[in-house]
Amino acid sequence: MAFRSIEWIEDKGVLRLIDQTRLPDTLVYLDLTDEHAICDAIRDMKVRGAPAIGVAAAYAIVAAAKRSKAESLKDLREDLRAADNSLRASRPTAVNLFWALDRMARVIGAATSMKSLRTSVLAEARAIEAEDVAVNQAISRYAMEVVPQRATFFHHCNTGSLATVDLGTALGVIRTAHESGHEVFAYLDETRPRLQGAKLSAWELMQYGVPHAVIVDGAAPHIMRTKGADLCVVGCDRVAANGDTANKIGTYALALAAKDNGVPFYVCAPTSTIDMTTQTGECIEIETRDEGEITHINAVRVAAKGAGVYNPAFDVTPARLISGIITEFGIAKPPFEDSLMRIMKDKHDGK
Amino acid sequence: MAFRSIEWIEDKGVLRLIDQTRLPDTLVYLDLTDEHAICDAIRDMKVRGAPAIGVAAAYAIVAAAKRSKAESLKDLREDLRAADNSLRASRPTAVNLFWALDRMARVIGAATSMKSLRTSVLAEARAIEAEDVAVNQAISRYAMEVVPQRATFFHHCNTGSLATVDLGTALGVIRTAHESGHEVFAYLDETRPRLQGAKLSAWELMQYGVPHAVIVDGAAPHIMRTKGADLCVVGCDRVAANGDTANKIGTYALALAAKDNGVPFYVCAPTSTIDMTTQTGECIEIETRDEGEITHINAVRVAAKGAGVYNPAFDVTPARLISGIITEFGIAKPPFEDSLMRIMKDKHDGK
Repeated sequence: MAFRSIEWIEDKGVLRLIDQTRLPDTLVYLDLTDEHAICDAIRDMKVRGAPAIGVAAAYAIVAAAKRSKAESLKDLREDLRAADNSLRASRPTAVNLFWALDRMARVIGAATSMKSLRTSVLAEARAIEAEDVAVNQAISRYAMEVVPQRATFFHHCNTGSLATVDLGTALGVIRTAHESGHEVFAYLDETRPRLQGAKLSAWELMQYGVPHAVIVDGAAPHIMRTKGADLCVVGCDRVAANGDTANKIGTYALALAAKDNGVPFYVCAPTSTIDMTTQTGECIEIETRDEGEITHINAVRVAAKGAGVYNPAFDVTPARLISGIITEFGIAKPPFEDSLMRIMKDKHDGK
Repeated sequence: MAFRSIEWIEDKGVLRLIDQTRLPDTLVYLDLTDEHAICDAIRDMKVRGAPAIGVAAAYAIVAAAKRSKAESLKDLREDLRAADNSLRASRPTAVNLFWALDRMARVIGAATSMKSLRTSVLAEARAIEAEDVAVNQAISRYAMEVVPQRATFFHHCNTGSLATVDLGTALGVIRTAHESGHEVFAYLDETRPRLQGAKLSAWELMQYGVPHAVIVDGAAPHIMRTKGADLCVVGCDRVAANGDTANKIGTYALALAAKDNGVPFYVCAPTSTIDMTTQTGECIEIETRDEGEITHINAVRVAAKGAGVYNPAFDVTPARLISGIITEFGIAKPPFEDSLMRIMKDKHDGK
């Protein structure tokens, strides 16, 4: 079974979202018709994953434009500015949210009539959505160059359809390999503390019928050594110009397991996450998150009461442990200083 | 605050145990006066850790001898044989349990009167108990040779007083360093799936006032890199003749983190765990445990329902990643084929 985490149904004026807070126990679709409900869904993490949030915000503007009772272009713009303000406040750290709303604001500014505004915001939201799908498809297509016919994958966190519009990045590679006839098995790091691997990635692979096993994060090197592995695929939050990659905590540990066992380690990175102004991973600031993510699981205390805790949310995998960075413009290989520069130039040149 | 996980109180004829199933929430001591209750406590994992189980079983024989209404040496031996049988069935895979009961059986066989039997089983149980404490003290003493004055430790699982009679192995090293005036900080792997680090090791270090932080297992390499580390100390379940070490799943991952960051990695190993008949780690069979340990935490489901799971309970850390193996006869350094042979010879020669 395939699914889209997010979908605009134009004839009903409805944004259909998977309520991710109900997963993996229950698959519930939410049909949202107004910008306030979409804004709430973003804030309450019913929709999560940077690309998915950006697209949801874009359609919130579409919904607001559709529902507005304004009788002039000026008043309509006023209504949309109010919607924009609430949306920007919903998840203040989500970069894609601002990027998507900026794109929508440019289109709103350029419109010459109420009718053209309504038409062009819908077109822009559809474009943002389509670009996300296309980027992920291109990443999966390039990835197939390095996926053998029989492929045992290792994967960290959730990088699938749920975090994007559809397909996803690293999990999309696994799904694409499976659907294009490779004999696939995927070991999924459960990914403490938030367990996105056990909860979301396992659920997604069950939908696609991909054979898999959830493992504790510390088991990866032992399993690679005793069961064998063909490649690791992970997503990323930011890639520095030298290839150092910030991603969910535990990614560096998986890369070490791969290195020690001679397993290729690939980062799946839309070029939007490659930051050529960041020289190395040393410059990437790592967010420390709430201790409760470690001390409690599903609201039940698991750690000794009063125990000290340290909870960095991301880590930086050194470029020397990375075999390749798979983008929508091809696979960058070491030395990454050169290959990433070439890819960003191709993007700039519109190749 | 110090504590003993297990203690025989002769004037009351009572075995006092910490109920480990109540930790870390509540510290409850159980006063057990008969062999059936002790047997139940072992089966129900109220007492856990191989050395602690062995000592508890020895005192169960003492209790049975004390309470027996037998009027002849023969009848007394009969009663003790029944106790021995129930104890052996309580945790059939715990090696120390059989080893301790074998020692007790030899003493029972050698006794010439009911009085001498009762005296000698008590003496033997006390000896088993004292040896465990002495072995751990010797390991901690030798370890101080490699612990700097300011020491940031990394530690996996639980290897403290709770798993032994007192002090413990790797966690005992951390405690000893702290109590002998070193400036100690300990990062504790939470140790999925059973979370012994978050539950038991954190609780123990709180009792001793050792500064510490519980971390998710995947965070160790990132924290070593960004915060620095002086050494890793871990326990072991079995050490092969070449130094390959089987221990709780995740140990190999911690050793890789240490290697990549230039951090010395020490295994604390009573010589009873060194198996010179096992050539390498390849020969050590690794137990696979119940999937529920991964899919559920404190009886609450965390993984997607129906997800595949693979749960090996132990892993093998290759000798090449180990800086030293700390025993009660000194620290074995690479090449371990030679140094472990020397240490086992010293033990045999009674040095």
